[in-house]
This record gives sequence, structure tokens and C-alpha cells, in this order.
Amino acid sequence: MTPLSEEMVRLGSTRSVIRELFEFGARRSAEIGAENVFDFSLGNPSAPPPRIVTETAAELLSTCDPAALHSYTSAQGDASVRAAIARDLTARFSLPYSPDDLYLTMGAAAALCCAFKALTCPGDSFVVLAPYFPEYQVFLQAAGAKMTVVPPRTRDFQIDLDALDRAIDAHTKGVVVNSPNNPSGAVYSPETCKQLADLLTAKSEAYGHPIWLLSDEPYREIVYPGAEVPWLPALYRDTLVCYSYSKSLSIPGDRFGYLLIPPASPDAKRLSFAVAGAARSLGYVCAPTFFQRIMERCTGYTADLSVYAKNRDLLLEAFRSYGYSCVPPQGAFYLFPRTLEEDDGAFCERARKFDLLLVPGSSFGCPGHMRISYCVPTERILRSLPAFQALAQTYL
Amino acid sequence: MTPLSEEMVRLGSTRSVIRELFEFGARRSAEIGAENVFDFSLGNPSAPPPRIVTETAAELLSTCDPAALHSYTSAQGDASVRAAIARDLTARFSLPYSPDDLYLTMGAAAALCCAFKALTCPGDSFVVLAPYFPEYQVFLQAAGAKMTVVPPRTRDFQIDLDALDRAIDAHTKGVVVNSPNNPSGAVYSPETCKQLADLLTAKSEAYGHPIWLLSDEPYREIVYPGAEVPWLPALYRDTLVCYSYSKSLSIPGDRFGYLLIPPASPDAKRLSFAVAGAARSLGYVCAPTFFQRIMERCTGYTADLSVYAKNRDLLLEAFRSYGYSCVPPQGAFYLFPRTLEEDDGAFCERARKFDLLLVPGSSFGCPGHMRISYCVPTERILRSLPAFQALAQTYL
Repeated sequence: MTPLSEEMVRLGSTRSVIRELFEFGARRSAEIGAENVFDFSLGNPSAPPPRIVTETAAELLSTCDPAALHSYTSAQGDASVRAAIARDLTARFSLPYSPDDLYLTMGAAAALCCAFKALTCPGDSFVVLAPYFPEYQVFLQAAGAKMTVVPPRTRDFQIDLDALDRAIDAHTKGVVVNSPNNPSGAVYSPETCKQLADLLTAKSEAYGHPIWLLSDEPYREIVYPGAEVPWLPALYRDTLVCYSYSKSLSIPGDRFGYLLIPPASPDAKRLSFAVAGAARSLGYVCAPTFFQRIMERCTGYTADLSVYAKNRDLLLEAFRSYGYSCVPPQGAFYLFPRTLEEDDGAFCERARKFDLLLVPGSSFGCPGHMRISYCVPTERILRSLPAFQALAQTYL
Repeated sequence: MTPLSEEMVRLGSTRSVIRELFEFGARRSAEIGAENVFDFSLGNPSAPPPRIVTETAAELLSTCDPAALHSYTSAQGDASVRAAIARDLTARFSLPYSPDDLYLTMGAAAALCCAFKALTCPGDSFVVLAPYFPEYQVFLQAAGAKMTVVPPRTRDFQIDLDALDRAIDAHTKGVVVNSPNNPSGAVYSPETCKQLADLLTAKSEAYGHPIWLLSDEPYREIVYPGAEVPWLPALYRDTLVCYSYSKSLSIPGDRFGYLLIPPASPDAKRLSFAVAGAARSLGYVCAPTFFQRIMERCTGYTADLSVYAKNRDLLLEAFRSYGYSCVPPQGAFYLFPRTLEEDDGAFCERARKFDLLLVPGSSFGCPGHMRISYCVPTERILRSLPAFQALAQTYL
């Protein structure tokens, strides 16, 4: 056996729980028909992209010099595209952003990888808050950083600030937050965000270096009545926003997003260089030019996201009557109820017998829960309800 | 000053020679008009993309379910897209390829990064042949591998096989080749390729493990009459092909290519896992779906590349009469003449006085030469000739 990078072999061959569910779903679909398999495992948006995306794409193809649509741009992205996004952010969040503050990336995953790699010095660690997106671990390890997990506050999935306080130490380079949250659907309240900012300010002073706040916010625009998503850079200066258009515009395959670097930080210039260096060493070259051009005109728009509110309400109402206990999601498109037995793996295994494909909370550092991705056709929700009810009855 | 990753700060702030030339060119263009600045520094294709790319894009937009164009695909790429590319490769190169042998990437840079990271164990090194693409160094360092450079054979820019023989040792994990070559324009002859394969076979046996051949071939389709580009996997089993559609279809901004993993290698399965793991740890998620769909129909096509032959012939003929000495390029779109003084940096600096923007060969590990990217409008070539002549006369 030839020596390869065993770490990479392991990373590539470890089937994620979600991948396994996907393959189980494919097999069952062949047996009983796709409409009878209730796949709630994937975060692939079900709302179609808005017409403006398709129309802008078609118009660019028919009116622009193809060279302008398909050439390289500078590594951080075309200046006029960055200007359009900066104008939109300035208008929405009342902070003065310039094109220099933006580095266009291939989605939020790339933005996170660049940020981690730009920030990490030997011995550094980042704090993540359970439940958390499992790829954080992969990206942090690739950057050479350690990951410290703050346990979940399961009564409301807000931040357990005391636990976060205890988790930060002299080696902490940053804290990663994701609100609206995958998988809990929590939106951190303005009070939580204010307390978070105060805590990070105090810790930065105590340790004599900034504790960076990485705000991973692909779900920013998916938020339900009564909730609002505070703009963290307005509360805490040293915030890096990692954004993706995947969910707001329903274009996850197009791989487009950005990293916003805090212009008021005294380290902004060096940090921009470090991000550029990280993107270079990761082989990114530039974000896809055609989609840069599309976003120049479409940033600030969203798909019609109303289907998610409808799906959420249907599930919440039915689940209450079936006896599932759940913190109502305030954003994103995930429901994260308690499982009806402690072992969430065993619960989700049993759910498969009802052709319900659910992801155990353990995958997100939060056992005893299940993630239900309701970014699916409403039809699937309706057809699945008897299965959820029957599953609950096996626990009576 | 806050500690950031100093390696990334350095990588992002070190201005490459090409970047400096770009900015000099922008300043001079403002002063004397862009038409009077003879920028030969960039490898941005000047041939427009073929109509089939634009037409396919427009047709997909008007006929396909947007979800199919913008959703995630599996990490290695959509199976039917990989099948289309595998069929094309099988038809062209008479080896039986399957979709499983392909990993779709965001261009050749991403393919190289994934390959290096998948293969590298601690202590490994890769051999590159001067003149070489300078980003190899960046990508190898990111993967944790050392780089060993074989000096150039400047009389014809074929491989110096004796020097390569001496450069390979027990730590050598692979050899990187790039034919047609950037910056020399050389195409390795069938004899050279055969000898390379024999050498690598012997070395693999001697060291008891495969020496992988990484064939970086974005210029495969840009080749002039009389030359042919041998298909290296047919000569040497353990070849990984890193391909990009950037140059053949003139779509460098679209970031699309693939890594071809040798199906006959006993390590193929583990290597595929390792590549998937590397792509995951680099934050790639999947190659852009819309361009996957376009390439499903456009793979095997090229832009009208005839402009490059025309530009090449114009330059070669003029250069002969001006007294520049040059190995005629057989492929790609770069001329790599000797500079008229030993110090190629000083020569290119002097060329700037004639508003000629040329890249010193030292950037590619080959001092005493200059790279002229002739992927420019023919008009620019014609207008620049008096400047090249005047520059030569300063050395009489």
C-alpha cells in the first residue's frame, strides 16, 4: 500500500451521516418511489432562485462582451462588483463599507477557510458553540488551529455566556457564531449579541490581543416574524462576516460569497493581505467571474423564502400534537427537536423504518436531538406527517 | 501589532512581478493611452470563448429547471457531467475512462492543490522542471511538501533527463510537468515523454513506491503545426492529469477543470478518497454547477485558437531580424527569448522605458530570459514591434 496522506484518505472516506442517509434514500426511492421517502437530511434550498438571477444571467450573456464575463478578475474580486456589495451593506447596516473591505470567495466555506488560515498562528484555538456545523472542525484542522466547543444551551439555543467565558483562554484566537443557526434555527437576540460583544471586548483587553468574532451567516435573510438578526460588526469591531448567497438566492451550486474584513480594525490592512495569501495558498485564484457580474446586480435580493415559514408552521403544529418537544426556529430552515430517546443515533435509525431521513444531533455536537431540514417541497412535509406520528407512537 | 499568520501576510503582500507590471501598465495607460502600452505580462486568453459556450449557457437558462442549474452536486461533481468528460477522454485518448476517475475542480490550480495535499506525507518532496509556473511553490508549501528544481535545458526546453535522474531521491513523491509549457512554449516530444516514463518506472521500482507524475496541462489544445502532445497516462500508469478549460475555451474566470486519477493504479480508490478529503479540507464543496452543466455539452470543443499561431509567427519573424534569440514555441501562447543582457530583471526594467511589459525569466526559475504572453490582440503585436526593435538597438 502506497503511502498517501492518511489524514486526507480518512477525511475523504469517512462517510458523513448525511452522505449515508443520502444513499439509503436513493436505494429506498428505487424500491418504493421517491415520493414515499421523506428525506429531511439536506440543506439544499427548495425555494427556486428569484427570476432576477436567471434574467440577469441571460441579459449578461446576450449583451456583454464574453471576455468581460469569463476573464480572470483580480484575486479579491472585480472592483465594481465589490463596490456594489459594499453599497448594499452600507445601506442596510449603516456602517460605511468600501470595496477594499470585501474579499469575494467561493461561498462561505471558502471564506471560513481563508479567515481561519489568515488568522491562525501556532498554538491558536477557536471556540465554536454547539450545536455547530461539523465542517468547522475540518477547516480548523486544515488551518492548524484547535477547536474548543461550548456546550449547547438546549432550553433556547441562545449562547451560554458563562460557558463561553470559561472556554476562552490565552490561546483563543477567535469565536465562531452562526445565527440564524444550522441546525437549531436559533437567532441570537439583540441582548445575547450585546453581551457577547461585551464579553469579547473584556477578554480582548484581558489578554492584550483581539479575540476575533467570525460570523458565519449564510442564513441571514431567512428569519421569521418577531426575530431580527443584529449586525454584529456594529456591536463588536473585530468581526469578520463570512457570507454566502447560497441560501438567500437559492444558488448553492454557484459557489459565491464574501469575507468582510472590519475596516476600523488597526489590523485591517495586514488581515486583508493575510486573507489574500490564504486564498492564494488554497488555490482559489478568483471567485467565478460570471457570478461576480450577476451579483453586481442581484446583491440585496432574495428568493421567495415564504415556503420555509409555511413548512415550519406545519411541522411545529403537527409536532406539538404528536408529543415532540422543540424550540421553535426563528430563522434558517431547520427544526431541531429532542429525540424521543436519549440515543439520537438509535432514534434516527428507527425513523428510517418509517422512511424518515433525519440527522442525529450528535453530528452537530448536540446529542439527544434530531435535525429536520424543512427546505423541501411542502408536499413532502404533508405526506410525512403520518410517519412522524407513527414513529412517536412507538415510544408511548 | 496583532499576531496573524505571518506566512499568509507575506504571501498576500508580496507583490508578484506580474502584479507590479500590471500596476505600472495601468499608470502608463492613463498617461499615454492604453493602445501605447504594450502589455505582454498576463496569461489571460485573447481569443473569445466559442459561441457554443454562450449558446449553451443561454439555452440552459431558458430550458432547465433553475434548481438543476444552481443546486449542490456531489463533491466530486455531477455523475452525468463526469460521464460526458470521461466519454470525450476515452474517444480522444483510447483509454477506457469512467466517471469515477474524474474529480471536477475549480480549475487546474485547485486540481494541483488537491493532488499535492492528497499525496503528501511528512518529508515528501516534488520535482519541478525549470522554467516552471511559480505558484507550484506556493501550493507545495501549503501541502507541506518540499520542492526540488531541475535546471532548464535552454537549448530546446525539453526535459534534461540526466538532471531529472539526479534530482529524484527516496523522498520524491512526484514529478510535475507542464507541456505545452508556460513560459517556454515547449511541447515535450514523444521521445522525451517515453524516456520520462521509462525513468519514472525505473525509479519507482528502485525506491519501491510509485513516483507520481502530475501533468498540469491547461494548454493541451494550444499546439502549433508539427507538434503533438502525447497523452502521458498512456505512457506512464501513475499519471494524474490536472486540467483546466480556462485556455482551451477562453473561460479562465469560470474556474472549471478536473483531476483525472489513474484507474489502473492499485491505489486509485484510496487516492480518490484522499483527493475528496483534500478538496473538503480546502473548502471547495463542489465545482460550480452551472459550469458543470455547460461543460457536459462543451467538453472537447475549443475557442478559435488561430490568433495565437498568427501572433507567434509575427513575433518570431520580427525577432529574428531584430537579433533576439528564441526557441520557437510549439504550444501555449508564450515566447521565451533570451534577454539581451544576462540580468533579465535589468533587461525587463529597460524594456519598460519602451512601454514594453515583459516578465523576467527568473520568476520561472530561468534567468537570462523574458516571457512574452502573446495572447493579446494582433494589433498590439504589430504596434509593439518598433519598440522591440528600438530596445534591441540599445544593446548594439
